[in-house]
Amino acid sequence: MARVNRQILLRARPRGLPKLSDFEMRESPVPVPDDREFLVQAIYLSVDPYMRGRMNDRVSYAPPVALGAVMVGGVVGRITRSNHPDFPDGTIVEGRLGWQDYALSDGKGVRRIDPTLAPISTALGVLGMPGLTAYFGLLDVGQAVAGETVVVSGAAGAVGSLAGQIARIKGCRVVGVAGSDAKVEWLLGELGFDAAFNYKTEPDPAARFRALCPQGVDVYFDNVGGVLTDAVFSLLNVHARVSVCGQISQYNAERPELGPRLLWGLIETRSKVQGFLVSDYAPRFKEAGAALAAWLKAGRIQYRETIVAGLENAPKAFLDLFHGTNVGKQLVKVSEE
Amino acid sequence: MARVNRQILLRARPRGLPKLSDFEMRESPVPVPDDREFLVQAIYLSVDPYMRGRMNDRVSYAPPVALGAVMVGGVVGRITRSNHPDFPDGTIVEGRLGWQDYALSDGKGVRRIDPTLAPISTALGVLGMPGLTAYFGLLDVGQAVAGETVVVSGAAGAVGSLAGQIARIKGCRVVGVAGSDAKVEWLLGELGFDAAFNYKTEPDPAARFRALCPQGVDVYFDNVGGVLTDAVFSLLNVHARVSVCGQISQYNAERPELGPRLLWGLIETRSKVQGFLVSDYAPRFKEAGAALAAWLKAGRIQYRETIVAGLENAPKAFLDLFHGTNVGKQLVKVSEE
Repeated sequence: MARVNRQILLRARPRGLPKLSDFEMRESPVPVPDDREFLVQAIYLSVDPYMRGRMNDRVSYAPPVALGAVMVGGVVGRITRSNHPDFPDGTIVEGRLGWQDYALSDGKGVRRIDPTLAPISTALGVLGMPGLTAYFGLLDVGQAVAGETVVVSGAAGAVGSLAGQIARIKGCRVVGVAGSDAKVEWLLGELGFDAAFNYKTEPDPAARFRALCPQGVDVYFDNVGGVLTDAVFSLLNVHARVSVCGQISQYNAERPELGPRLLWGLIETRSKVQGFLVSDYAPRFKEAGAALAAWLKAGRIQYRETIVAGLENAPKAFLDLFHGTNVGKQLVKVSEE
Repeated sequence: MARVNRQILLRARPRGLPKLSDFEMRESPVPVPDDREFLVQAIYLSVDPYMRGRMNDRVSYAPPVALGAVMVGGVVGRITRSNHPDFPDGTIVEGRLGWQDYALSDGKGVRRIDPTLAPISTALGVLGMPGLTAYFGLLDVGQAVAGETVVVSGAAGAVGSLAGQIARIKGCRVVGVAGSDAKVEWLLGELGFDAAFNYKTEPDPAARFRALCPQGVDVYFDNVGGVLTDAVFSLLNVHARVSVCGQISQYNAERPELGPRLLWGLIETRSKVQGFLVSDYAPRFKEAGAALAAWLKAGRIQYRETIVAGLENAPKAFLDLFHGTNVGKQLVKVSEE
């Protein structure tokens, strides 16, 4: 075991798009577990758009990361030293252990992963937060049912790709929008979306949505916001549901972006727009996890991972999320399985 | 009985704020009821903000009024000639009978009013569409419960004044915003609102809302939209509900007004924004009507009417809605009770 724990800290609060210089790496001694604690060596680190909000000096639904503190993030790792009876050495676990090689834990918020069931990286994707987010956002917030038209923005991302596939499983017609031709090809091919387009090369996304949703839109699973969302809102059917999962197009805005006011349209269609956080669904994680695992095992859900090697590359992997470089789940491989 | 039926027709589709010249009066013969029809002489005509939408050449939740057709509107009147066994001569009825002295009906969508229970004009207010709208918008869409802070915009209007009072009855803290000092006085006095202010003389409505809602906002009953709504959105609590009843600030916009994008905030607070139409609640009108009648009888609900005399003044009474001239329900008195 290494003697050094590399940690990536928040160095500066970004204005607008974060920069590599907003992060810095520190080396510190590997910590030693106390009684009822254990040490986890990171194998995979998840980078996710929500982390952008934690870099601001503003309490949102969670407190910000302090300047000089380790960046927050989900990790799958191996217990290398344990003083905790429930978490023996060698156990694979998942938890919010941060951007670092090693983390101490007392087990709170950490779950054991069975590596024989699925690749352990899926604990950060289809069988983890993104999968649960897609499940509850589509089925609970969105109330998608068979025969309805579901639009997913950010459709080739970790959450969007799963939301679209769950909608297909439920018998919906699924239209996705993503940011590259390769992503669109993946959506239409392997993932079985009914329609999809690349918004970066589409001069008139509103017209494209209209053409692809001749029956209007019943459920909109929104990861993106902005002008794409404006276009979808104009197609909402009576009693449509908008499940607001993310607004990645807005996260780096230095002041609130202006857009057309949308509320009048909600009266005409009696539509519901609801934001949600997956953490509110913790009491139902078991139900959703079982469903996702069954679909994965049955081959009804496909997934992709974009994996960058080396903890030192975590900042770049994170920044790439805002350029849409990733297909599916963006991971950082911190050490060997 | 007069031989002439005066009718107010839509003459031109307005751009922006409607003008008196967008309407015209026509005189035509009083129609004669066929078998199973009856003739209603209008006593009170209701003018409401929703009618602005019907003047546009665009199918919204209801088809537009055709050019040259009688304007739509709720009426309380007396049956003066009947060939319908269920609606004898002399019966007081309420229905969407339009801006005219006389209307034929086959009874569909028309309800009998008992003039001994309450003044018949209330069938167009507290015991009619505005009352039902306030009831379902606050309790079903807004899910307001005791102890919560409820904000009502357009609080001195027909719907807003009732929504606020129902919230008080349910044990909520109620903050209203209206467009004149006299209205604010009414809200704080007779109606028992906990706080209220005049947005027209308040240089910083956002700061005022902050001051008046120290516990944040749990339910926002929105009749107005625009900058007032932006201000309230910034105060939404976790799991807040926004009941979008009207957007009167936007109805005359010639192109969609721009405002700050609001969806990201909904994620942080996991709030729900829902538009509604009272007509969707028709199966539950009886329940709501009984509750409203009981509150009215018990003196727990107060109401005001702003009554303009003469059908010929209906266009002006309607236009006045957009200047906020009315306190409570705006009515046109077409004939004597």
